[in-house]
Amino acid sequence: MTPTPVIPPYPVLYEALIRQALAEDLGRAGDLTTDAVIPPDTRASAHLVARKGGRIAGLDVALSAFRMLDQTLSITILRGDGEDVTAGTTFAVINGAARPILTAERTALNILGRLSGIATATATIVAAILPLPTMIVCTRKTTPGLRMLEKYAVLVGGGGNHRFGLDDAVLIKDNHLVVAGGLRPAVERARARIGHMVKIEVEVDTLEQLAELLTLQVDAVLLDNMDTATLRRAVAMVDKRLITEASGGITPETVRAVAETGVDMISLGWLTHTVKNFDVALDFQAD
Amino acid sequence: MTPTPVIPPYPVLYEALIRQALAEDLGRAGDLTTDAVIPPDTRASAHLVARKGGRIAGLDVALSAFRMLDQTLSITILRGDGEDVTAGTTFAVINGAARPILTAERTALNILGRLSGIATATATIVAAILPLPTMIVCTRKTTPGLRMLEKYAVLVGGGGNHRFGLDDAVLIKDNHLVVAGGLRPAVERARARIGHMVKIEVEVDTLEQLAELLTLQVDAVLLDNMDTATLRRAVAMVDKRLITEASGGITPETVRAVAETGVDMISLGWLTHTVKNFDVALDFQAD
Amino acid sequence: MTPTPVIPPYPVLYEALIRQALAEDLGRAGDLTTDAVIPPDTRASAHLVARKGGRIAGLDVALSAFRMLDQTLSITILRGDGEDVTAGTTFAVINGAARPILTAERTALNILGRLSGIATATATIVAAILPLPTMIVCTRKTTPGLRMLEKYAVLVGGGGNHRFGLDDAVLIKDNHLVVAGGLRPAVERARARIGHMVKIEVEVDTLEQLAELLTLQVDAVLLDNMDTATLRRAVAMVDKRLITEASGGITPETVRAVAETGVDMISLGWLTHTVKNFDVALDFQAD
Amino acid sequence: MTPTPVIPPYPVLYEALIRQALAEDLGRAGDLTTDAVIPPDTRASAHLVARKGGRIAGLDVALSAFRMLDQTLSITILRGDGEDVTAGTTFAVINGAARPILTAERTALNILGRLSGIATATATIVAAILPLPTMIVCTRKTTPGLRMLEKYAVLVGGGGNHRFGLDDAVLIKDNHLVVAGGLRPAVERARARIGHMVKIEVEVDTLEQLAELLTLQVDAVLLDNMDTATLRRAVAMVDKRLITEASGGITPETVRAVAETGVDMISLGWLTHTVKNFDVALDFQAD
Amino acid sequence: MTPTPVIPPYPVLYEALIRQALAEDLGRAGDLTTDAVIPPDTRASAHLVARKGGRIAGLDVALSAFRMLDQTLSITILRGDGEDVTAGTTFAVINGAARPILTAERTALNILGRLSGIATATATIVAAILPLPTMIVCTRKTTPGLRMLEKYAVLVGGGGNHRFGLDDAVLIKDNHLVVAGGLRPAVERARARIGHMVKIEVEVDTLEQLAELLTLQVDAVLLDNMDTATLRRAVAMVDKRLITEASGGITPETVRAVAETGVDMISLGWLTHTVKNFDVALDFQAD
Amino acid sequence: MTPTPVIPPYPVLYEALIRQALAEDLGRAGDLTTDAVIPPDTRASAHLVARKGGRIAGLDVALSAFRMLDQTLSITILRGDGEDVTAGTTFAVINGAARPILTAERTALNILGRLSGIATATATIVAAILPLPTMIVCTRKTTPGLRMLEKYAVLVGGGGNHRFGLDDAVLIKDNHLVVAGGLRPAVERARARIGHMVKIEVEVDTLEQLAELLTLQVDAVLLDNMDTATLRRAVAMVDKRLITEASGGITPETVRAVAETGVDMISLGWLTHTVKNFDVALDFQAD
Repeated sequence: MTPTPVIPPYPVLYEALIRQALAEDLGRAGDLTTDAVIPPDTRASAHLVARKGGRIAGLDVALSAFRMLDQTLSITILRGDGEDVTAGTTFAVINGAARPILTAERTALNILGRLSGIATATATIVAAILPLPTMIVCTRKTTPGLRMLEKYAVLVGGGGNHRFGLDDAVLIKDNHLVVAGGLRPAVERARARIGHMVKIEVEVDTLEQLAELLTLQVDAVLLDNMDTATLRRAVAMVDKRLITEASGGITPETVRAVAETGVDMISLGWLTHTVKNFDVALDFQAD
Repeated sequence: MTPTPVIPPYPVLYEALIRQALAEDLGRAGDLTTDAVIPPDTRASAHLVARKGGRIAGLDVALSAFRMLDQTLSITILRGDGEDVTAGTTFAVINGAARPILTAERTALNILGRLSGIATATATIVAAILPLPTMIVCTRKTTPGLRMLEKYAVLVGGGGNHRFGLDDAVLIKDNHLVVAGGLRPAVERARARIGHMVKIEVEVDTLEQLAELLTLQVDAVLLDNMDTATLRRAVAMVDKRLITEASGGITPETVRAVAETGVDMISLGWLTHTVKNFDVALDFQAD
Repeated sequence: MTPTPVIPPYPVLYEALIRQALAEDLGRAGDLTTDAVIPPDTRASAHLVARKGGRIAGLDVALSAFRMLDQTLSITILRGDGEDVTAGTTFAVINGAARPILTAERTALNILGRLSGIATATATIVAAILPLPTMIVCTRKTTPGLRMLEKYAVLVGGGGNHRFGLDDAVLIKDNHLVVAGGLRPAVERARARIGHMVKIEVEVDTLEQLAELLTLQVDAVLLDNMDTATLRRAVAMVDKRLITEASGGITPETVRAVAETGVDMISLGWLTHTVKNFDVALDFQAD
Repeated sequence: MTPTPVIPPYPVLYEALIRQALAEDLGRAGDLTTDAVIPPDTRASAHLVARKGGRIAGLDVALSAFRMLDQTLSITILRGDGEDVTAGTTFAVINGAARPILTAERTALNILGRLSGIATATATIVAAILPLPTMIVCTRKTTPGLRMLEKYAVLVGGGGNHRFGLDDAVLIKDNHLVVAGGLRPAVERARARIGHMVKIEVEVDTLEQLAELLTLQVDAVLLDNMDTATLRRAVAMVDKRLITEASGGITPETVRAVAETGVDMISLGWLTHTVKNFDVALDFQAD
Repeated sequence: MTPTPVIPPYPVLYEALIRQALAEDLGRAGDLTTDAVIPPDTRASAHLVARKGGRIAGLDVALSAFRMLDQTLSITILRGDGEDVTAGTTFAVINGAARPILTAERTALNILGRLSGIATATATIVAAILPLPTMIVCTRKTTPGLRMLEKYAVLVGGGGNHRFGLDDAVLIKDNHLVVAGGLRPAVERARARIGHMVKIEVEVDTLEQLAELLTLQVDAVLLDNMDTATLRRAVAMVDKRLITEASGGITPETVRAVAETGVDMISLGWLTHTVKNFDVALDFQAD
Repeated sequence: MTPTPVIPPYPVLYEALIRQALAEDLGRAGDLTTDAVIPPDTRASAHLVARKGGRIAGLDVALSAFRMLDQTLSITILRGDGEDVTAGTTFAVINGAARPILTAERTALNILGRLSGIATATATIVAAILPLPTMIVCTRKTTPGLRMLEKYAVLVGGGGNHRFGLDDAVLIKDNHLVVAGGLRPAVERARARIGHMVKIEVEVDTLEQLAELLTLQVDAVLLDNMDTATLRRAVAMVDKRLITEASGGITPETVRAVAETGVDMISLGWLTHTVKNFDVALDFQAD
């Protein structure tokens, strides 16, 4: 049984963001250049072309910028979200009035470049650990206002999502432990308050902490900043009683070694906080 | 006469963004972990510490996340926007109720890491071309919703700002030329329509185009994707009659050679579209 | 170790709602009556008095309506969220300018009456099953726009919260099963797609379905519309391997019998969709 | 001449509310269950079925939740706002993609259940006093954010609307009188300030107050918390010179006796503040 | 008994408008001039000075623009809303940081100039008909987004307010009559549907229409575009059974003659749709 | 080569304003009159007719109010933005359901009247100085929230636009000079901080100031409140080295004399702050 494909978010969830992005670029006076230079009846066709290879994510989201300016544009998608393209590939074509295409170009490319950049980086890491079963997941280190879309891009890249926010799971981190007075009181307070559909994960830095944690009732453990030898011992200690997650300073160079320790998951903040833009161009031809 | 320092934006301009970022992280149920684990009367002090060296930008903006949750927190800024810190430097200290500090942490760090990352990258490039007079500027390749703040971070890094949007200057680019039927009609239409306080810049790819442009009335020229030899010839042809801007595929490795061609400005999309997060941590101590 | 008390939401999360509620009542012309009838310098003291017995919830939220109109009002809270009051109890006193108190009265009482009504109903049900360990939980059958506050009121009443939305846990219901082609494919698809910090619950209507479900890997089972005898057998079949939740047509009269079946949880839509307003009055005295 | 039927509000007035309600339920990650379990191309038909008898209100409003997610759904309305249905009646059918129907279900039912619940309760009370001419009206004791829709539901139930807010009529209540120094100064100040298209109503608790009020110039009197004998005397004293309104603790059991006193109107806060949800289900069939 | 003074709206009702107006002026890059030219620690005092004589309205509203940028500014109000000033009068003084005062200046003056312009024009007309008892009222011909504030300015000028919107009174106009099939069906339908606290006014163009209207049950009549002789006859026909309102093409030159016909009210669209800005300056002195 | 025509703003930029204007007029209860008086199936045709001569501006913007209420209305535009009409001209016809046409009427006319009023006043001034090359421009003295639309109306009238906000050009005014310590330091600070695509203009009141300014590096000079003799000398002194702009107390009577001094531009605050509404009516016929 194959899983259902990754589902793009409903437009009702991202349209306000795109409208705001267009308004941010158009300002009060609109597109001075296009309004002055391009006669209103000019028509054009424009090709979305990958300048580098990578994985497309957020194409529908980005294209909605064009549609918001002109509902009569004809848009043909040749390769969509989740597909890999090589440099030079035209993956969408837009035909219609030249002005709205020129005016929405930057807004659309900014979104597409960012989301495809995240998907591409994720896909690279996912490929790097094949065929190990470890899941690559992102964190809450996302851009303000874009969390939903950036988490979606990670899914498109073949990764998984950790928490979407502070409210969908418990993650007791080092700072909580400093203030709460230790592992046991922190976990017990969490168990006494948290609903039945919420999982609890706890961050530990040492095997001593891990040993204490294994005497308490939690669902997952975040093994923070451990070297691979320690991680391997931690995985053995846990012995599948908890979900194990490695995090902290893991790079493309070290990720495979970490995955080979047997952890269930590796979380990487840089998947979303240090994005390499995917290079896309919009090439015009007058009609 | 020294210029006035870079002025951070008024809170009235960014508070809605920070409120939205907090809401994005808090969701519907709030900070499950902190609410469950930390008793309400617990107090703490938390240090904002640089994990790597770099230039701080957006500290006030980021700290407003804490203040929105608790106006009674005491916040001491040791190093502020525009100052360079080394790894390990504590640059701000927050004292007060532990819960709001824990809850706002990620929102604040996401903003601070991004803006300081942009300022740090800009400062590195600016330093790389010293003492050449060339200005390093950013583009409109910014994150949706964050343009004002990202452009501010570039200023803090010692760079300059190109257009903030489609409405504050005319920039006739290659796609406009394709559709408008050539340089001359495009520039003439622009001159006939554009207000007296608006400058006009035109992108050219070849010296032939540049020669034609010099017969027309514009304020600046964008020299796109030229090698340094061609750039040097272009600068000579312009002979200070126009502002000259180089752009297109310029990297940290090549930027000094480009600056040495004598162009007035170098614009770099990756200053804002390919951000390396500045690594900041919030270290807690229970009081 | 006692759990930390229920934490009211941060004002940053509900202020927009209260501002909107005030604007809804004030309209375009404001409080015609108060503006016409009460001289601006009139002062008053006003007592929030319970007309019936019950549990207070949302007092801070409601009082913010007064504070939004006049930050100089002096407000004294005698009994706060989570406390039980009897008919006639004054639980808060407001002193200051008469006009803002009169103008915000209805907005504040509408919120306080609703949230305290939910908390009171929840507390009654929770008391009815003492000392059984069953948790009483609410559902997503909440008022549009008020989910966060209504779920909070249930916590104040001593109940627990089920999902806050479609995005914080998987709950495969009868309609999903109709469309998905049965229990096994639905659960397997869910397991293949869902993140490691998300729990999966499945609704079953019969013991046959339950038997099939027990061969699959899920976290909880919703036993829908079963009589108490069937519930008892279901609990025995599950034998603590899953969290068990009973739902469907359970009333104050039947809830104890359901709890006695040994289910872990009972979910009640009417806790939030059929609210009996808590009767509170604001009694004025001229100063 | 029959009056025009009750007109549902224009979508432009409620779409933001429905969008917000969908966003509240979808959160950041969307409908985890449906996205995981239901293949995108699955089609279904879903029947809106009344579980109990009652009067439908808000059907268009509720159905807009489905349309916002998928404009291609085919929706057939069999019985609409203002019609009475019996338990088991299918009153609308939705055909199309299964996913948006499942995802919008709860949002739609929450609105429909609430508004139909109000209409049903109103219709029951209106029927209880037939054929007396007394009008049953609601108050400002509505849910924050839903006043327009809840007042509309009362109209659908055959009732009338009192004030929509503080700004569309003057209602001098007991608290105003306490602070304003008595009936005469309050009414005279109101008359001196209020526009020509605004009516003035005053609350009285005793026949002595009523006698004083009859010497002043107002449009209506609110007879608060009077027993039926006193109400009858009040109606006689007024002798049709003012509109008479009874309020205060009137229940389904006592409403007919109150109506028989001859008052023009009876206002009931519980029509909107203590709603019994109308029980509606969405029954699916795979296509 | 004097009426209470005109009450300015609560800030909660206009702050969003002022914030939006500031954002409209500040754009994405803020106040380029002030940020570049004025060192951050420069202090100044600025006098709000009337350039012409007139009546102040909206001073608090306008000053909130300064306070939004800098809560530490010291503001002294010498003459407030409702007071008449002569050319050259300083009516408010602002002391503090020079930058926020310069930056908010235009936003504040735009609001103050408009509202004081409306109040001044209203006061002139009100004075022109003294001591006749006719009320001067404004209409719904207001600026999009500013209705509340413009209606308030009319009150400050000594005028009255007609409807604030389509929802606070019935006004059957010529276009309704065209479509509804005449006076009688229109009025009867209105009476059958409209709540007890809502007044009904009908527009008539001829004395024949007025005669028919007097056989129906309404509260007020709008006598549209009648000459003064006809108005006089209309007032006699009505004989105080209805409120009479004259409208249509009435100018400052003709308003006294219209008032002398004995109509109760004169409504003037140009009070709000054709505003003469009140000329105010902000004069700076460096401290 | 003719310039491209003035381009109306994209709906995505003004729809929120129109929606807010409709909501402001509809309030909570909607159009009481139309809902009560006009049966839902009534159809009508309505003609937009100019009551006076003038230039149309904002027709699409205004018509969007009708379309927001009913997308099935048939709208025919006979004369559009930029066209001059005489009194009595029907320039658009709307056919369809009578109710939405009646309900949106005032919102549409308020916008159309204001924008066409601005265009008409601008066109009159532009005609008054023909064939002089001087440009007539507006200022930032616009209505809060309407700047984009009012600036567009000036373009439609044949005028030009000065700054759209504080962020698109530098304009050093008298108040800046008072605080900054004189012309030279102000200009030098500006040059040191301002980006390469931003122009600098400085206000001077005397020829002495102008002489000093000519020794500094700026793009334009605002000659404030100078008589025509002085303006003529200023133009001669500048000798085309800067753009010259005259402002301050210029009226329709004096504008030609000012233009004849040879200044490049004349800026007039009253084009937008003192609008004479364009008189438009919507004439109905029942179908």
